[in-house]
Amino acid sequence: MTTQRLERARAAMRDAGVDALLIGPSADLRYLVGYHALPLERLTLLVVPAEGDPTLVVPTLEAARAEEDGADRHVALRPWDETDDPVGLVRDLLGDAGADTGRLAVQDRLWSSFTLQLQAALPGADWVAGSRVMRALRLRKSPEEIQALRDVGAAIDAVHAAVPELLRAGRTEVEVGREIAELILEDHDEVNFVIVASGPNGASPHHETGARVLTTGDAVVVDIGGTRDGYCSDMTRDYVIGHAPAGYEELHAVLEQAQEAAVRAVRPGVPAAAIDEAARAVIRDAGYGDRFIHRTGHGIGVEEHEEPWIVGGNDEVVEAGMAFSVEPGIYVPGRYGARIEDIVVVTDDGVERVNHRPREIVVC
Amino acid sequence: MTTQRLERARAAMRDAGVDALLIGPSADLRYLVGYHALPLERLTLLVVPAEGDPTLVVPTLEAARAEEDGADRHVALRPWDETDDPVGLVRDLLGDAGADTGRLAVQDRLWSSFTLQLQAALPGADWVAGSRVMRALRLRKSPEEIQALRDVGAAIDAVHAAVPELLRAGRTEVEVGREIAELILEDHDEVNFVIVASGPNGASPHHETGARVLTTGDAVVVDIGGTRDGYCSDMTRDYVIGHAPAGYEELHAVLEQAQEAAVRAVRPGVPAAAIDEAARAVIRDAGYGDRFIHRTGHGIGVEEHEEPWIVGGNDEVVEAGMAFSVEPGIYVPGRYGARIEDIVVVTDDGVERVNHRPREIVVC
Repeated sequence: MTTQRLERARAAMRDAGVDALLIGPSADLRYLVGYHALPLERLTLLVVPAEGDPTLVVPTLEAARAEEDGADRHVALRPWDETDDPVGLVRDLLGDAGADTGRLAVQDRLWSSFTLQLQAALPGADWVAGSRVMRALRLRKSPEEIQALRDVGAAIDAVHAAVPELLRAGRTEVEVGREIAELILEDHDEVNFVIVASGPNGASPHHETGARVLTTGDAVVVDIGGTRDGYCSDMTRDYVIGHAPAGYEELHAVLEQAQEAAVRAVRPGVPAAAIDEAARAVIRDAGYGDRFIHRTGHGIGVEEHEEPWIVGGNDEVVEAGMAFSVEPGIYVPGRYGARIEDIVVVTDDGVERVNHRPREIVVC
Repeated sequence: MTTQRLERARAAMRDAGVDALLIGPSADLRYLVGYHALPLERLTLLVVPAEGDPTLVVPTLEAARAEEDGADRHVALRPWDETDDPVGLVRDLLGDAGADTGRLAVQDRLWSSFTLQLQAALPGADWVAGSRVMRALRLRKSPEEIQALRDVGAAIDAVHAAVPELLRAGRTEVEVGREIAELILEDHDEVNFVIVASGPNGASPHHETGARVLTTGDAVVVDIGGTRDGYCSDMTRDYVIGHAPAGYEELHAVLEQAQEAAVRAVRPGVPAAAIDEAARAVIRDAGYGDRFIHRTGHGIGVEEHEEPWIVGGNDEVVEAGMAFSVEPGIYVPGRYGARIEDIVVVTDDGVERVNHRPREIVVC
């Protein structure tokens, strides 16, 4: 599978006029050669020339891990020792591709220390973002990838089904979060994040868990995700302890309509911004416009957050095979927040959700 | 404390001829303004001009987290909304510092996507590594930082004291690792990593934990660390289940001598490479030279791995206040590995260890 992906990357390089692709530890590296490399101060870099064989430059003491992950089935490994110069090694591997006429695409998350060292060693090259090559590959999922997203979507649905039993007055967010993490691991390989944001904490979209004790009348935003067979889940539902706080049911009814409107807006050829606007219009019309303080969604796949961004100003149209979250939220500082999130896949003529739990408030 | 650090950073910038320092989510950001930012595709960037006030450019939906961490006590926050252009915002904040004559230091781990965007927006500037400013600050620890390293050193000593009870034939590395993680949390705020590498897994220095079942006669490398009050621990000891495998005691006696020799070599004015060589010479003389496949140590502080690197070829001399690991290892592929690691602090006339558990093989 990944050897095919390397071939597709080379085709994309030729289309983009890129002479070599440089990929450090990242989801792109996992996607291309299966290696789950740690980002370290020692350089790991996959060098993919448009012509000639790709090579993985890897610190000697990481080579065993690269082989465990099967990277050597797809590319040659070139281990470097503690006293070697890995940037010089990359320059040598690039040959003509690194010369003054070369265009080099560097993976988007490579550390600036490596980027600046590579630029200093190859001063004439034209540097462009690696996503120029990788995004088209990663954006449109294959049927196998879509099945993986369905499977991990079902796995996180099952966790949300069990959440109401964990949410009880007197327990802390941290306690609940730990138990949710254990549930995620029952059918995921990794926990990516657990947000249990109760009461006023719910008004901060990225609050994780804290010492706050759940209290009757709290609204609780539960936003959780993990990785299963290399693909990510990400799903949010809203719960209340005993009963909803004043005003929350009305707010949530608006949010349900907004999320539904955005999902219904998804089909091939629709701009990402229009999907965002579909949710935003409902929330704005209900008078909560200034309480929806983030974009409507983000792509998902081998990474939790990837392209496409479902956000105002993004006129790019969505296409069959794209997968992303639809997750409008309404946040009232000092009181509570609410967010509903499903992952959807663009089909040939519309949309498929991969999460299926009811979207209403769940009373615990 | 952190406001003083910002002033020290500005003094270092003047010494290095740097007109502005650009710091993304990183240990440097925590060190300077206390903000534990997530690395996200939305730009967070602390802009510190040599003259004028520093500003933290932060996505609106992360601003609450930055304030929770107290960043607004040290710098002005400049939130940006989903449809704003954060790179343009940085360019405007830089003013003259970003002009063609400006030298901009960019934090070492900033993603290349941001580095390339900033370079495109400020095409005339001279880009240098942020570590050129930050390394001198971070390298030499203050008395308060050294006390924090002693405290977290004592905390991880206590975990190793409890490890022998957990290592039993029939248990998996993963099971043991989970219990060690719980023990770490008793007196740390975070678990950074847990390595339980049994039998042949011990020969891979970065193996973490796996499904392997511990067996009588196994050697087990246990390398663990966490963060307590913002400072990191990192400590390795070697255990055997029931009895040592053939050849392991001889190998370990060599390793103990090597680690002791390297620690004794530490004092102000000694090159880092000489400390590495002190350990390496002992191991080489005993015939295991090609089995010691990594550097002898790494600096530690607010990060698990930071400068100085205790490695061959690094002629930089160590100075009072520097803190680093001394962790030689010997690895026999297919059979076992061994590593002994303490954190040491360079004193005015020698060295202080912050880990004190016995370094011999512990029979479980």
